[in-house]
Amino acid sequence: MTTVRLDLAYNGAEFAGWAAQPGERTVQQEIEAALERVLGMRHRLTVAGRTDAGVHAWGQVASFDTEAELPRSFDRALNAVTPDDIAIWGAAEAEQGFDARRDARSRTYCYRVLAAPAPSPFERGLSLFWPHRLYPAMLERCAEAVVGTHDFTAFTPTETEHVRFERQVLMSEWRRGRLLGPTMRIPRAGLEVFELWIEADAFMRGMVRALVGTMLEVGSGRRSLEDFTALLEGAPRKDAGDTARAHGLYLAAVGY
Amino acid sequence: MTTVRLDLAYNGAEFAGWAAQPGERTVQQEIEAALERVLGMRHRLTVAGRTDAGVHAWGQVASFDTEAELPRSFDRALNAVTPDDIAIWGAAEAEQGFDARRDARSRTYCYRVLAAPAPSPFERGLSLFWPHRLYPAMLERCAEAVVGTHDFTAFTPTETEHVRFERQVLMSEWRRGRLLGPTMRIPRAGLEVFELWIEADAFMRGMVRALVGTMLEVGSGRRSLEDFTALLEGAPRKDAGDTARAHGLYLAAVGY
Repeated sequence: MTTVRLDLAYNGAEFAGWAAQPGERTVQQEIEAALERVLGMRHRLTVAGRTDAGVHAWGQVASFDTEAELPRSFDRALNAVTPDDIAIWGAAEAEQGFDARRDARSRTYCYRVLAAPAPSPFERGLSLFWPHRLYPAMLERCAEAVVGTHDFTAFTPTETEHVRFERQVLMSEWRRGRLLGPTMRIPRAGLEVFELWIEADAFMRGMVRALVGTMLEVGSGRRSLEDFTALLEGAPRKDAGDTARAHGLYLAAVGY
Repeated sequence: MTTVRLDLAYNGAEFAGWAAQPGERTVQQEIEAALERVLGMRHRLTVAGRTDAGVHAWGQVASFDTEAELPRSFDRALNAVTPDDIAIWGAAEAEQGFDARRDARSRTYCYRVLAAPAPSPFERGLSLFWPHRLYPAMLERCAEAVVGTHDFTAFTPTETEHVRFERQVLMSEWRRGRLLGPTMRIPRAGLEVFELWIEADAFMRGMVRALVGTMLEVGSGRRSLEDFTALLEGAPRKDAGDTARAHGLYLAAVGY
C-alpha cells in the first residue's frame, strides 16, 4: 500500500466546488477520473480544504492510498489528462498513512480585492472588483482584531452544524498585492490590489468570505471597528456583513 | 473642436484584433459604439498600435476629435457601456490636434512565457505555456542582439508591403515576471515567468511574435545565437522561426 500526496491548483470559475456531487462538474470528480485513467483503478481522495463553488485553489493538498504502482512522471501523466483549469504541481509518494485532511495543522486563504475606478480585463474572475471608497488602515485593524481564538458564529451560515464555533486564527493581515498583467505600473489609473491573508487551524463554511464582506463595510466607512470586534464573541450571523463573492478567494496553502 | 485621448486595456482573447472588420468583434468597434452611446454621435478612432487577433493591450492609446461636449466622469461613463474585457483607464482632453498614432515616438510590447512543467490555471490565455528546456542566458543574448537598427524582413509575413524593413529597437530585454495568482511562491512546482520587453520606434506586423518564436528556439538549444543574429540583416521570413501565439503578447505602453 502506497500513500500519495497531490499538490494542486485550480481556477474555481467553472467548478461547483471541490466535493463530488451528482450532475455537477467538481474538482474531486475531475481528479479522480484522471487517477482512474492513469492508474487503471478508482480511488477516493481526501482533501485538506473542501472549497465551495467558484473558489480557487493555489496550494490545495489531497491524498489517497493505492495498491497501484505509480508510473514514472506521475505528475506529468496526470496533467496530461486533467482539464486546463486544474494543475497538478506535485504527485509523489508520501509517508505511509499521510492524510491530507486529518494531518493538516493549518489552512491559509488569500482573498483578493481590486480597488480601482475601472475593472482590469486581466482580473476578471480572479479578484473582487471594488470601485468604492476604501481605507486600508481600517482593513488592517479589522485583520488584527481577528488574530487569536474567537467564536466565529457570525461568520458562517446559520444552518452550519458545528459542535463548536471557536477557531484559532494564527495570522491575519492585509497586504498590497500585485495586479495581474505585465509587470509594470498603470499610467494614472489608480488600480490597487489588496489581499487578506488569513491562516487558522481550520475554517468554517463561508468564514473567510463573510469576514471579508464585513471588513469591507468597515473599510468603506459603513460599519465601525468596534461593531466588527463585537461580532467576534459569538454574535448571530445576521449581525455581520454580506458574504463576499467566491471568485476573490484562494485556498493558498496548507500547513502540516 | 476638442481632441480626446483614451488610455485603455483589453483582454484580446475574444477579439478579432483592434481594427474594425465587418462581421467580427473588434476592440475599435466596441469602443466606437460606447462613444456613440455616451456622446450621441459617431467618431472614428485613431490608435497607437493596431493589435492583431488575440493580442492583449495594457497601455493602448487612442484619440479622436469631437464637437461634442465631454460629460463629467467621461471615463466612468465609457466604462459603464464597454464590455468587461475592455477597461478605459483614462479619457481626457488632450492638446488640440493630438494624434495617437502619428505622434507616437515608440511602442513597448511585453511577451509573457510561462516556463513550467505544468500549466497554471490562472495563466490560461495570458502567457505562452512552455514546458520545454529553456536557457535564460541564451534568451538574454538574443534580446541584446536585437537592440539598434536592423532589417527585420525575417520577422514579418512575406506578403507585408513596406517601403523599408528597418526598425530601430530602443530597448530589448528578458525580465523575470510574476506568476499570476496570489503573491506567494509555489511549493516545488518550478514555475517561472519570463517576459520579453521590447521598445521600438515602430513594429511591423507579427514582428514581436516572430522574434519570440525564434528566440525560444535559441533558448531551448535548437538554433544557434549566430544563426539568430544573422537573421537581423534582411534574411527571408522562411529562415526565422515560428510566430509565437498571440495570447502571450501585450501592447504595454506608447511613448510620446
